[in-house]
Amino acid sequence: MFKKILENVSNCPPLVHCITNYVTVNDCANSVLACGGAPIMADDINEVEEIISICNALVINIGTLNERTVAAMIMAGKKANRLGRPVILDPVGAGASSLRTNTVFKLLNEVQFSVIRGNVSEIKTIDQGSGTTKGVDADISDAVNKDNLDQMIAFAKALSEKTGAIIAITGAIDIVADHQKALVIRNGHPMMSRITGTGCMLTTVIGSYCGANPEQLLLATSAAVSCMGLCGELAFEKVQSQEAGTASFRAFLIDAMSLMNIETLKGGMKLETR
Amino acid sequence: MFKKILENVSNCPPLVHCITNYVTVNDCANSVLACGGAPIMADDINEVEEIISICNALVINIGTLNERTVAAMIMAGKKANRLGRPVILDPVGAGASSLRTNTVFKLLNEVQFSVIRGNVSEIKTIDQGSGTTKGVDADISDAVNKDNLDQMIAFAKALSEKTGAIIAITGAIDIVADHQKALVIRNGHPMMSRITGTGCMLTTVIGSYCGANPEQLLLATSAAVSCMGLCGELAFEKVQSQEAGTASFRAFLIDAMSLMNIETLKGGMKLETR
Amino acid sequence: MFKKILENVSNCPPLVHCITNYVTVNDCANSVLACGGAPIMADDINEVEEIISICNALVINIGTLNERTVAAMIMAGKKANRLGRPVILDPVGAGASSLRTNTVFKLLNEVQFSVIRGNVSEIKTIDQGSGTTKGVDADISDAVNKDNLDQMIAFAKALSEKTGAIIAITGAIDIVADHQKALVIRNGHPMMSRITGTGCMLTTVIGSYCGANPEQLLLATSAAVSCMGLCGELAFEKVQSQEAGTASFRAFLIDAMSLMNIETLKGGMKLETR
Repeated sequence: MFKKILENVSNCPPLVHCITNYVTVNDCANSVLACGGAPIMADDINEVEEIISICNALVINIGTLNERTVAAMIMAGKKANRLGRPVILDPVGAGASSLRTNTVFKLLNEVQFSVIRGNVSEIKTIDQGSGTTKGVDADISDAVNKDNLDQMIAFAKALSEKTGAIIAITGAIDIVADHQKALVIRNGHPMMSRITGTGCMLTTVIGSYCGANPEQLLLATSAAVSCMGLCGELAFEKVQSQEAGTASFRAFLIDAMSLMNIETLKGGMKLETR
Repeated sequence: MFKKILENVSNCPPLVHCITNYVTVNDCANSVLACGGAPIMADDINEVEEIISICNALVINIGTLNERTVAAMIMAGKKANRLGRPVILDPVGAGASSLRTNTVFKLLNEVQFSVIRGNVSEIKTIDQGSGTTKGVDADISDAVNKDNLDQMIAFAKALSEKTGAIIAITGAIDIVADHQKALVIRNGHPMMSRITGTGCMLTTVIGSYCGANPEQLLLATSAAVSCMGLCGELAFEKVQSQEAGTASFRAFLIDAMSLMNIETLKGGMKLETR
Repeated sequence: MFKKILENVSNCPPLVHCITNYVTVNDCANSVLACGGAPIMADDINEVEEIISICNALVINIGTLNERTVAAMIMAGKKANRLGRPVILDPVGAGASSLRTNTVFKLLNEVQFSVIRGNVSEIKTIDQGSGTTKGVDADISDAVNKDNLDQMIAFAKALSEKTGAIIAITGAIDIVADHQKALVIRNGHPMMSRITGTGCMLTTVIGSYCGANPEQLLLATSAAVSCMGLCGELAFEKVQSQEAGTASFRAFLIDAMSLMNIETLKGGMKLETR
């Protein structure tokens, strides 16, 4: 199922333009490299159009937004749209402040996104125009679980129809959906929420996979989500065997991504089509 | 002594708003998470008031200050004061340039800090209005030692009275003082100064502990200082057993923080009340 | 050959002022510390002149440039020139956008650099005024190899004469040259290109070595290049023995730098004078 997706990444390593936050930017660049792409971090309005022109995908992350970079995000996004390059949005903390919520709507208004990845509170904010985000983490009452899964899948499909973007809601259970079809992914480990940036990193892996597979966005996004979740499981095993902590977990997570191949992914992915 | 402090952190994980530098920001976010809090890094003037409103504490670190963020620091600090949230200052490099020294005084003038943590040169700069900081490290001639300990404790108490803040002077010997009482802490390891950011990380752990214990600032700060020092000792043991270097030390330090509990802290803390 | 270079670093640890990008800044600061220096990251125009005044060297890296920091780079560079401090340029991504290419020429015009380190595409851009950089990585067709080595050495010497700076071209084979003499260095490992920032880190190590050896820039730069390459080899050995991935490689690389000494360097350096 994901064989071709991964082959395209290794046969023609995607160059991924990231306009992202300064908290997890290093992990993001290393995640792109670990999964087989090449990153370029550039956020000055005077170069973003040129940079996206030589790249295969654009990742926009509002983690530490400010006026200077928002203008660059819009300019890069519009150019990527004109060039037909996939544009991925990570609406970090949407719902936590009006600046973030308003910026997300401004971006959605000006740029056609190919994929939007966030936690459930961020994605709900995109649908409802206001949110219950607890800081940059999802509100616990929002979490996707066994009981509301059908409802959340319907929600993701409807939002995909409304926005024209693949919707990836990530948490204990992940949902990746276009307007017709959804994949439910049960990879991952709770320790992923004990380090900063697993969401941001995942978004750049989605950017890499989509950059190499622009005609297969749903599959590419699902592969990235499953892959990152599986890396979390593998990293946790290693942490346990070494009685290590969260910083080692972070290193092992990126390590696992750099060692990932189709056999490991096939053996570990927990995926269901809905 | 610190049992209740740590329990409050785990029972009600503090959300910690950090306006900090781009050098160690990732380590700061991961340190907040490792010690049981949740970080939100936000420095745009258009959102800091909203962000601090949903948080339990504010950490201000001037490591890579610029005009844009100084204005946000003051606005966030004033709002935190109105809301009664603890505000922690890390005056990185105060004394190394007039911009830094002047900014610290501007901040002290506009914001009531709950805790100020720095190395001895930075703290002396706060007292004297000028400093002998060697870059962002303490001047060796300033160091707290056996011979000047009494004098330094008196200095810390007096500065606490003057500023209304808990004063935490960290180095080979740490002093945490309010205007009446001081705790002398002898945890830590010299290898902590061979990586960047141990001071910044500690300040965010202080922010987390104070956020969960706003009525116990002296104890919360002392617990954080002792805890970080002990993590340094544990990390060094692990580095030695693996013949590793400074980057592994950094990971083991955060690992140790993420594995810390009251039993380990009780067994390892080296604390004296003065 | 490098004994005195390393001794000068440990006998009088250089303070290194870095104006660098926010992607790899933490690795840069930790690399300076690992190799025996002390870093200070400061990019505000209101403090850079004061900061360079207390430092031994200045490193300018344009990885994530913007208008605010370019002005600070020029001001700091001019002041460093007046003070006679070594100034090192890392022209990250020169050739990838006109902003980057133009900025490099503006910098070269205003500041006298002591050392310029880049990949072959970036260095060719400096010579030719336009480039074929693939993002921030070198174009494969540009690579230094057995067949074009003589020609590349002549090119490096000529560019050194033209710019007045030591030229360090790094890749599978490294060339360090002044206008008369070149050193060819064959240390390093391909895994170094699978993490972000090895180039940036190397530039800060060059800054540290040059800061401690301002009269021996060619030797100091060559020592740094050989040393970093050897660290890559040592890190790879450790990665292999632990079946680890790229994030562990990054940690082991900095670990190796922090454990480096003249015996290890002598035993492992692969150097040829041309």
